[in-house]
Amino acid sequence: MKNLKLKFKTKNLVKIALAEDVGSGDITTRSIVDSSAVARGVILAKEAGVIAGLEAAKEVFKQVDKKIKFVPRLRDGEMVRKGKVIATVSGPARGILTGERVALNFLQRLSGIATLTNKFKSRISHISSRCSILDTRKTTPGLRALEKYAVKCGGGTNHRMGLYDAILIKDNHIKITGGIDKAVKACKAKKAFKAIEVEAKTLGQVKKAIKVGVDRILLDNMNLKTLRKAVKLCKKARIKTEASGGVNLKIVRAIAKTGVDFISVGALTHSARALDISLKIL
Amino acid sequence: MKNLKLKFKTKNLVKIALAEDVGSGDITTRSIVDSSAVARGVILAKEAGVIAGLEAAKEVFKQVDKKIKFVPRLRDGEMVRKGKVIATVSGPARGILTGERVALNFLQRLSGIATLTNKFKSRISHISSRCSILDTRKTTPGLRALEKYAVKCGGGTNHRMGLYDAILIKDNHIKITGGIDKAVKACKAKKAFKAIEVEAKTLGQVKKAIKVGVDRILLDNMNLKTLRKAVKLCKKARIKTEASGGVNLKIVRAIAKTGVDFISVGALTHSARALDISLKIL
Amino acid sequence: MKNLKLKFKTKNLVKIALAEDVGSGDITTRSIVDSSAVARGVILAKEAGVIAGLEAAKEVFKQVDKKIKFVPRLRDGEMVRKGKVIATVSGPARGILTGERVALNFLQRLSGIATLTNKFKSRISHISSRCSILDTRKTTPGLRALEKYAVKCGGGTNHRMGLYDAILIKDNHIKITGGIDKAVKACKAKKAFKAIEVEAKTLGQVKKAIKVGVDRILLDNMNLKTLRKAVKLCKKARIKTEASGGVNLKIVRAIAKTGVDFISVGALTHSARALDISLKIL
Amino acid sequence: MKNLKLKFKTKNLVKIALAEDVGSGDITTRSIVDSSAVARGVILAKEAGVIAGLEAAKEVFKQVDKKIKFVPRLRDGEMVRKGKVIATVSGPARGILTGERVALNFLQRLSGIATLTNKFKSRISHISSRCSILDTRKTTPGLRALEKYAVKCGGGTNHRMGLYDAILIKDNHIKITGGIDKAVKACKAKKAFKAIEVEAKTLGQVKKAIKVGVDRILLDNMNLKTLRKAVKLCKKARIKTEASGGVNLKIVRAIAKTGVDFISVGALTHSARALDISLKIL
Amino acid sequence: MKNLKLKFKTKNLVKIALAEDVGSGDITTRSIVDSSAVARGVILAKEAGVIAGLEAAKEVFKQVDKKIKFVPRLRDGEMVRKGKVIATVSGPARGILTGERVALNFLQRLSGIATLTNKFKSRISHISSRCSILDTRKTTPGLRALEKYAVKCGGGTNHRMGLYDAILIKDNHIKITGGIDKAVKACKAKKAFKAIEVEAKTLGQVKKAIKVGVDRILLDNMNLKTLRKAVKLCKKARIKTEASGGVNLKIVRAIAKTGVDFISVGALTHSARALDISLKIL
Amino acid sequence: MKNLKLKFKTKNLVKIALAEDVGSGDITTRSIVDSSAVARGVILAKEAGVIAGLEAAKEVFKQVDKKIKFVPRLRDGEMVRKGKVIATVSGPARGILTGERVALNFLQRLSGIATLTNKFKSRISHISSRCSILDTRKTTPGLRALEKYAVKCGGGTNHRMGLYDAILIKDNHIKITGGIDKAVKACKAKKAFKAIEVEAKTLGQVKKAIKVGVDRILLDNMNLKTLRKAVKLCKKARIKTEASGGVNLKIVRAIAKTGVDFISVGALTHSARALDISLKIL
Repeated sequence: MKNLKLKFKTKNLVKIALAEDVGSGDITTRSIVDSSAVARGVILAKEAGVIAGLEAAKEVFKQVDKKIKFVPRLRDGEMVRKGKVIATVSGPARGILTGERVALNFLQRLSGIATLTNKFKSRISHISSRCSILDTRKTTPGLRALEKYAVKCGGGTNHRMGLYDAILIKDNHIKITGGIDKAVKACKAKKAFKAIEVEAKTLGQVKKAIKVGVDRILLDNMNLKTLRKAVKLCKKARIKTEASGGVNLKIVRAIAKTGVDFISVGALTHSARALDISLKIL
Repeated sequence: MKNLKLKFKTKNLVKIALAEDVGSGDITTRSIVDSSAVARGVILAKEAGVIAGLEAAKEVFKQVDKKIKFVPRLRDGEMVRKGKVIATVSGPARGILTGERVALNFLQRLSGIATLTNKFKSRISHISSRCSILDTRKTTPGLRALEKYAVKCGGGTNHRMGLYDAILIKDNHIKITGGIDKAVKACKAKKAFKAIEVEAKTLGQVKKAIKVGVDRILLDNMNLKTLRKAVKLCKKARIKTEASGGVNLKIVRAIAKTGVDFISVGALTHSARALDISLKIL
Repeated sequence: MKNLKLKFKTKNLVKIALAEDVGSGDITTRSIVDSSAVARGVILAKEAGVIAGLEAAKEVFKQVDKKIKFVPRLRDGEMVRKGKVIATVSGPARGILTGERVALNFLQRLSGIATLTNKFKSRISHISSRCSILDTRKTTPGLRALEKYAVKCGGGTNHRMGLYDAILIKDNHIKITGGIDKAVKACKAKKAFKAIEVEAKTLGQVKKAIKVGVDRILLDNMNLKTLRKAVKLCKKARIKTEASGGVNLKIVRAIAKTGVDFISVGALTHSARALDISLKIL
Repeated sequence: MKNLKLKFKTKNLVKIALAEDVGSGDITTRSIVDSSAVARGVILAKEAGVIAGLEAAKEVFKQVDKKIKFVPRLRDGEMVRKGKVIATVSGPARGILTGERVALNFLQRLSGIATLTNKFKSRISHISSRCSILDTRKTTPGLRALEKYAVKCGGGTNHRMGLYDAILIKDNHIKITGGIDKAVKACKAKKAFKAIEVEAKTLGQVKKAIKVGVDRILLDNMNLKTLRKAVKLCKKARIKTEASGGVNLKIVRAIAKTGVDFISVGALTHSARALDISLKIL
Repeated sequence: MKNLKLKFKTKNLVKIALAEDVGSGDITTRSIVDSSAVARGVILAKEAGVIAGLEAAKEVFKQVDKKIKFVPRLRDGEMVRKGKVIATVSGPARGILTGERVALNFLQRLSGIATLTNKFKSRISHISSRCSILDTRKTTPGLRALEKYAVKCGGGTNHRMGLYDAILIKDNHIKITGGIDKAVKACKAKKAFKAIEVEAKTLGQVKKAIKVGVDRILLDNMNLKTLRKAVKLCKKARIKTEASGGVNLKIVRAIAKTGVDFISVGALTHSARALDISLKIL
Repeated sequence: MKNLKLKFKTKNLVKIALAEDVGSGDITTRSIVDSSAVARGVILAKEAGVIAGLEAAKEVFKQVDKKIKFVPRLRDGEMVRKGKVIATVSGPARGILTGERVALNFLQRLSGIATLTNKFKSRISHISSRCSILDTRKTTPGLRALEKYAVKCGGGTNHRMGLYDAILIKDNHIKITGGIDKAVKACKAKKAFKAIEVEAKTLGQVKKAIKVGVDRILLDNMNLKTLRKAVKLCKKARIKTEASGGVNLKIVRAIAKTGVDFISVGALTHSARALDISLKIL
C-alpha cells in the first residue's frame, strides 16, 4: 500500500467504519474491561486464502488507540493456510476489543476478493501467462480503491478506475449514437488523450471496430467459437481483446484458451464471499 | 426508507460513490452523447429476487441530473421475477449513462442481501413464525445502515446497530474478565439502561448466565442437541435465545426447530452475492 | 477521557471553536507579541468546584501550537478549591494568548456542569447510595458527548445518549398511539433488543405500565405522595423508577427519600452556570 | 436572520445536533408511530421571556422532514408571555416527535440568552439610552454566531466576533509587552485598519491609554468611584469607554450611571439559564 | 457547464470563497442597506474578451440569497466587446452587494484564461485547423477543473486532468529510470489501459521513443529546425506530436507551422491576467 | 508562517490540490519508479524574484510521503537570483516526482505575487517610507489567506481580510443609501467597533466624508491633481488616505508623491504572473 490515494481512502474509510460501529461508545467493553488492562490476541485464518487489507486492519487499531501494536506475520498478496496466524495485536485490552470487528470486516472482505481473484488467475496460468484477469466498475460504493487493490493482491490486473480515466464505449452508448464507428469517431474528435475500448457483441461489430481503429475491443457474451474468430481478427489488426459476460471458474480456462488478452470478471468485487478470519484473545 | 438517518447516509454515500466513479468526468459519454439528447431505459431483473435499494438508485440519478425521472415499478421488499422491469429511467441521456453503474451497484448489492435474507426466512417460516433471522455487525465498512435496511427488506430482523446501542458480552470479553457472572455484574453496575446479551458456548455457561440474569443469551456454535437443552433452560427462565455460528441454508431449519427465538447469520451481509440486474436503453 | 468517541468529538469541536474565535488571525497578539517570545501561565479556579474538560483545554493549546506544554494539576472529576491552580501552560507566548479564551470556554462550561451535578449528588448521598442523578437530552447542540461526560465527572449517571440507543415512550408518543399498553406492545413487536422506559403521570398509568411490562418507568411531575405510591408499586413489580420534572436543589432530597432509583435533571446541562476560571500569565 | 453566515452556521449546527440525537434512528417513534400518521402541536412558553432561535427550530423540522410545516406566531426578539403559543408545527407525526427535542434545545438556549440580555438592558434603559450591553467571547464552543445573534435579539450589542476583527489589548498582553503604550504602538505600526481597545485597571493606565491614543478603553473591575473618574477622563479625550468585570443585575444600573458607553457581561452567554419551553401534541 | 464534476466543484468552491470573504458577516452592507431593499445591477465588460465562469457567478448569488435573479446576456465561450453588458443581477440589494466581489473574482479570472487561450488559438487558426492549443497541470491549487473548463471556453483543448488519467513520462522520470525505452516498457508492462506520452529533448530521444512505440511525443524546448525534423519523423511513424517550452504569442505561429499536432502553454493557467469586469448598480 | 489560520488553510489546500492532481494515483511514476528508489533534487529559480510559499511546498511533500526531506535554502520574503537553489528535496523518488507539480504550483504563484508586490514597493520606497502598497479582495477563490501572506512577503501591507473585519463603503453602497453621510452615519449607529473607510470619487465627496468623520478615505480613480488636493484636505483633518484605480508600475511613483498613505493594487493578486521555478532531479 505504497500508494498515496489508497492511504488517504483507507484512513478516511476506517474513520467512517469506526464511527458507524462505535457510535457513542462501546458500552460493553467500557462496562467490563478496566481502562488499564492489557491483552494480546492473534488474528487467525479459519480457512486458506490470499490476504489483503492488512494496512486497513492496522489503521483501525491505530485510530482506536495509538498504543495498540499490530504486527502482521505476512504481507498483502501472500497465501495463508487454514489455522495460521495472520497478525498479532497487543496493548490496551479495551481498544483491541473495540476495534476487533471493524478490523476483521476490512480483512475478511478484501481477502475474500483477493482469494477469488487468485482462483481465477490460477485456473488460467497454465494456459497463458499473458492473459490477465481484470476487475470491473462493479464495486461496493465507497470501496473501489480498496477493492481494486485487493484484486491486484490476488494476481489480477486493474481495468480503468472509473469513468474518467479511459474510454469504454458500451452497448448503451452505441445504441444512442447509432453505430460503433460514429461513437469511436466522436471520441477521437475530442483529442482527449485517452485509450479507447469498444464493446462488440458480433463479428460484424468487431470488424467495424477494427476498421475505425481502437486500442482494445471488449468481446461481450460471445460463445467460444465466435470468441476465437474475433480474437483472430483482432490479433491480425494488432488490437488487444477482452472477454466478458458470465465468466465463472468453470469456463474461464476455455475462454483463456481462445487467446484473449484480458478476461474481466464482475464477480471479483460484487460477489466474493468473505474469507473466514477471527481474532482470538490469548 | 422513511428513516432520517438512512436518508442522510444514502445521500452521502451516493455522493462518495459518484465521486469515485465519475472523478473528473465521464469522458466516454461526454465525447459521444450530445448534451441535449434524451433517452429512456428500463432496469431489468435478470434473475428472481427481493428488491432493496430503490431510494439509493433514485438518489444516484437525482444527484447526476435533477431532470432525470426515475419511476420504480415495485417497492423495496417486494419480490421480482426474472425478466421483469424494476424501474424506468427517462430524461437527459448523458445523465442516465453516467449514473447507470453506480445506481446498479447499490441496487444489486442491497437486493442481493435482501434476497439471501429472504431465503433464510423462507426456510424457517413453516417451522415457527416466532423465530427471527438476525443480521450481525459483519457489514461492509460504511454501508451498515443500508445493509441492515436491506436485511429488513428481506424479512430479517436487525440486531444492535453497533457497539453503542446494546450490550453483547462475547467470549473475548469473558476471557478478559474471568467469567460470565463477573462480566454481567460489571455491566449492571453501570446502570447504562441497555439490554444485555451474553455469549455462551456450553450448558454450564448458559446456567451461569441464567443465574446472574440477562435479557438474551447467544448460543454459539452448539450442536443441535445441546442447543435444544439450552433453549429449554432459557425458556423456563423466560430469557430469549439466539443461535449463531456456521448457520447456512441447509441447517437453518433444524436450528429453528430447536425453538430458539433468533438465528443470527453473518453471511447475510458479508457474503451475499449481487443480484443480477441491468439497465437497458430502449 | 479514555473514550474513542469523546476523543474524536473533542478534537473536532476544538477545531470548530478555534476557527470561530481565531478566524483570519489573532491580530492583537500578532501585532504585539514577538513570534519567538515564550511565557508561562497558570489556570486558576476563582471559585470552588468540580473540574471537567482538561483534555479539551489541552487539545486547544495543542491545536494552536504543538510546542505549548499543558500540565494539569488535578484530574477531571476532582474538586478544586478557590484560588488553586488547575493547570500550568508554558511555551510560545503567542499561542498561549491565542488559545486562552477557547480553552477557558471549554473548561468553564464543563466544570460548571460537573459542579452542579455534584451539588445534586451531594444532597442525596446521605439518603441513599442507590439513587442516581441522571442527565437528559436537553444538552447544547453539538456538545452532547462532552456535556454527558461532564455529568459523569460530577458523579452523575448518563441516561440514554440519544433517540437511538434506548426506548423512552413519552406523553406525546402515548397521545398519538392512544395508550401506554398499545405503545409498549408496538415497541416489543419490533424485537429491537433495547431497554424500554415509559412515562407515567398518574398511578393509573403506572399500573398499566407494570401490567404490560417495561424495564423502567419515568414518574413525571408527581407530587411526593403519589411518587411514593408509584415507587412502591414498581418495587413490587421489580421495575426501576425515575423521577423527573421541576427537580431542584431544594426538593431533590425529598424526592430521593421516596425510594426512586433515578432522578433526572434537565438543568444539569441546560442551565448550569460556568465555573469561574481564569488564565494568568506569570 | 437575514444574515448569510448565520444561515450557514445554523444549517450546519442543526445537522450536527440531529446527528448526535437521532444517531442510527429514533427507535421509539419508529416502533410506535405509523409512517403515515400526521399530527399537530404547539410550542408553548412555560414562562415569560424574549424569543430567539425560531429559524433554527424551523430548520430542525425542515431537515427532519420537509413536509413538516412550522409556523411561528411571533418573531425573534419579541416578548412572549407565560402560557402563550410561540409556534405551531404540523405534518408527519414521526418527524415532529423526532425533531422536538433538538428544536427545543435551540429555542430554549437562545431564548434564555435573549431573555437575560433583555433583563440587563431593561435595568439601564431609564438611566441612559446611549449605554449598550455588550456580549463577550465567553460563548459556547461552536455556537458563537447564534449566541451573539441571541444577544442582539435581547436588545444587546455585539462586541467583536473573535480575535480577528478588532484589536483588544488585555492585561496578559500588557504583561508580556511591558506597558500599555508599547502594546498600542506595536498595533498601530502594523497599519491593520482595525479599531483598537485597551484594558485598563487603574486611572494611571487610563491616562497612558489616552495619551497613546485608542478607540476605546475597557475599564476592568474598577469600583464605581474610580469608574466615574475614568469615564470623565475618557469623555474629555473623546474616547469610548466599556465597563467589565463582575457585572450583575443588581449593580448594572449603578455602573450605567457612571456614564460609560458600554457594559460587557460574560454571563449573557456563559451562564444564561434555558427558557422553559415545551412542545405539546394536540 | 453540463458536467457533473464541474458542477460539484463549482458549488463547493463558491462556498469556500464566500466563507473566506464574508466570514462572520458583511458588516458594511448590513449597517447601511435595509434588509428589504431591492436593487438592479449590470455586470459590464470594461475590456474585450472571451467570457467564462457565468455559472460560477450565478452560483455565488444563488448561495448568497436564492431570491437574487442572475440573467446572463451571453454564454461561456462567447466574445464580449468593451462596454457591453455580460449579465444582469436583480433582487435583494444586500445580497447583490455581498456577492459582488466573489462573483467577479470567478468571472474575471476564468474569462482572463479564456481570453488568453483564445489569443493563442487565433494566432494559429490560419496556419492549421488541426493544431490544438493545450493546457498543462500548472493550474491554481483547487481550481483545476474550472481553469481547464475556461481553456475550453477559449477554444483550447484539455491535456490530461492530472497524474491519474494518462501517462506522461518526463525528463525527471527518464533520469531516474535510465532511458526512454526502459521507462516506456515499464509502463506497458503494467497494462494500465492508458495513453502513453514521452518527453524528448533531442532527435535521438525522439527516435528512441518512436522505436519503443508511444501514443504521443512531447517535443520539449526544441528550436524550430529541430522541431520540424522531429515532427517529420513522428508523422512517418503515425505518432502525434506536442510542442512545449517557452511558448508565447509571438512564436506560437512559427511553432504551428512545423506541423505539430498540439502546442501546450503553461501560461494559459499560471499567468493569465484577469479580464476587467465590474458590477454597476443602476 | 507562524500564523495558526494560515497553517490550517495551507494544510487543507494542499490536501485539495493533491487530490485533484493525483486522483486515483500517479500512474506514470508508479509504473516506472521502484517503490524503494530514492532521489535528490533541487528547486531552482529560473528567473530572479521574491520567494513566498516555502511552507506550502514543504507541506505538499510531507503529505505525499513523510519520509521526504525538504530543506529550504532561504526564507519566505527573501530575494532569489536567477539560477540559484531555493530548496533541496531528498528521499523516496516516487513521492518527489508525484509532489513536484503541486509544490511548484504553490511556489510559483505565491512567489509571483510577492515579486510583483516587491516591484511596486521598490518603485515608491525612495519617495516615501510611509506610503504602503495594499492588496485588495480581488484574490483567487479559496487562496485569499495565502495570497495576502504573499503580499506581505513582497513588502506589501494587507487591507481588510474580507467583508467582516472592517467597514469599506463603496460607490454601490452610496448609490443605494443616497449619500456618503447617510451611509457613514448608518455604520456608526451600529456601534460595530470597526474602523470605517469610505470611497470618494470627487473633492465634494471627500469633504462630505471629512465632515461626517471616518478613519480612512479611499480616493478612487482621481487624476494626480485632484488626488493631491484630496490628500491635503485629509491630512488637515488627520484622516488617512488610500489611492486606488488603474495603478500600475509606471504611475505608482507619481501617486506616491501626492502624499497618500496607502496605494491599493488589485493586480497584485488577480494578475501577477507565476515566477519561473523548476525542480531538477540530480
